[in-house]
Amino acid sequence: MQFDHLGVAVRDLDARTSAWAALAGAASADTEEVPTQQVRVRFVPFGPTDIELLSPTSPTSPIAKFLDGRGEGIHHVAFRVESVDSELERLKRGGQRVIDEHARPGARGRRVGFAHPSAFGGVLVEFVEGP
Amino acid sequence: MQFDHLGVAVRDLDARTSAWAALAGAASADTEEVPTQQVRVRFVPFGPTDIELLSPTSPTSPIAKFLDGRGEGIHHVAFRVESVDSELERLKRGGQRVIDEHARPGARGRRVGFAHPSAFGGVLVEFVEGP
Repeated sequence: MQFDHLGVAVRDLDARTSAWAALAGAASADTEEVPTQQVRVRFVPFGPTDIELLSPTSPTSPIAKFLDGRGEGIHHVAFRVESVDSELERLKRGGQRVIDEHARPGARGRRVGFAHPSAFGGVLVEFVEGP
Repeated sequence: MQFDHLGVAVRDLDARTSAWAALAGAASADTEEVPTQQVRVRFVPFGPTDIELLSPTSPTSPIAKFLDGRGEGIHHVAFRVESVDSELERLKRGGQRVIDEHARPGARGRRVGFAHPSAFGGVLVEFVEGP
């Protein structure tokens, strides 16, 4: 299993994109809106792993609540897996909680699913299907 | 520039190692003490990127303060670079703050240096020298 991306909650998408793109020495991908999460996202590539910048499009977005509670910062870490459903099922069999019972559509047209932060000591883990 | 590791602050090193090692499908490396940071660390490999679990060895450790303030969770993200000093210098030239003026010894015998979280919107970025 490998890292896919690191999700970072931001207030000002343009300003933060500049800082991360300068560090990466690479341009970010185009902005994408993910209506199911009420966020606008941009991916900045660091080799095979991306920084995903997330800004809320609504006050009820999970990212808006995160920003209100803790401010800007790392929101989640995502791993690339063959089957999101299998990973969620494996956690549940081990007695862990999950946020998503099954894979659902995420950014970049990929199937995603979230474990509950209690499964990994306060770290919100996302699974993303991909090669 | 590529991801080197993701640093996670934990209270119970053994319990958290189990959860991450099960996810990785790989054993963690041996425990290492890093006196300069007053932490005990373990690395769990996910392909070329690691999860670094950090637990404090003293109440004055930066990780102890992080745990007191925010609880367990992601503490920093580290990128592999050719020269830590060059990256810190580049940030300073761009008007950004740094925690370390110069590289210093870190875990696994490697030279490391931290930017200030304000440089990346609340994200604590570490640079690690390595191939």
